[in-house]
Amino acid sequence: MQLHADFSTPEKRMDFVLYLARKNIEHRSGGPFAAAIFNQDTHQLIAVGVNLVESSLCSNHHAEMVAIALAEQTLQSYTLHGEHLPRCELISSCEPCAMCFGAIPWSGIKHLTYGATSADAQAIGFDEGAKHPDWVSELEKRGISVTPEISRNQAAQLLKDYQHHSGTVYNG
Amino acid sequence: MQLHADFSTPEKRMDFVLYLARKNIEHRSGGPFAAAIFNQDTHQLIAVGVNLVESSLCSNHHAEMVAIALAEQTLQSYTLHGEHLPRCELISSCEPCAMCFGAIPWSGIKHLTYGATSADAQAIGFDEGAKHPDWVSELEKRGISVTPEISRNQAAQLLKDYQHHSGTVYNG
Repeated sequence: MQLHADFSTPEKRMDFVLYLARKNIEHRSGGPFAAAIFNQDTHQLIAVGVNLVESSLCSNHHAEMVAIALAEQTLQSYTLHGEHLPRCELISSCEPCAMCFGAIPWSGIKHLTYGATSADAQAIGFDEGAKHPDWVSELEKRGISVTPEISRNQAAQLLKDYQHHSGTVYNG
Repeated sequence: MQLHADFSTPEKRMDFVLYLARKNIEHRSGGPFAAAIFNQDTHQLIAVGVNLVESSLCSNHHAEMVAIALAEQTLQSYTLHGEHLPRCELISSCEPCAMCFGAIPWSGIKHLTYGATSADAQAIGFDEGAKHPDWVSELEKRGISVTPEISRNQAAQLLKDYQHHSGTVYNG
């Protein structure tokens, strides 16, 4: 794929995130997951994250967690929600696991867009953990909306490609 | 309280963790939460963590997450579960929030002991997020046992003291 800077649609933003995930696989720098945080209104890129669990020796370093940490450093705020801050969208190549789901409300993110589903991640052996059965409603209660399964086929294919690359499937 | 190095009972290990949380409040270095990771068999201390959300400008930096990251650095492994690794116990001053609950299986921790409950944290204004309703069973399914409410009264009192100190109650 070609990297471009047009982030005007969810599909284009997802394309960019899937590009990052593919690079993470190719460079063997981590698991097949990437994320990015955008200004929800202008679609300006604020921060990116890739899975760094193996390379940083830290099980917390899922793509979404890395993107949240970098966005907060960029905006110099421990929450991405505030009067003088842009509203933030998290784009993730895959439905968040139980940890990343729990991290989203704390982070102040106001919109989540994801690609592959937890079932797709579980199909290659990752245990995504036990999310609340009504997790989307639980986010909505906290003012966070969700756009599911953008470019799911491409996102799921990437997970399969990782498996074919014999990438490490780690679980605790 | 006096700091001592006798970690032979859950109450003594919790005493140490509550001491860390109290220091975090007194030094205004973060929220009223602390955690530590011990060798489950010898009770040797492996790593500590305190809440660093405000001071590090990172909403991910709950006490448990910091302790997990430091334990993994100490053992140089992205999982605390392995043939050549000690079985690890996480002691937390408070029942884990949704994020920290999700982080535990990825971390390889095999036992969780906590003090105050989520209701105690919520009583002073923290939104602990939406954990799976059967979260204890979900951990047990993954080989992780749970000892609840060790020294709960002291742990809950500490949260109230933080409130009286006018500590920041942040939510996303």
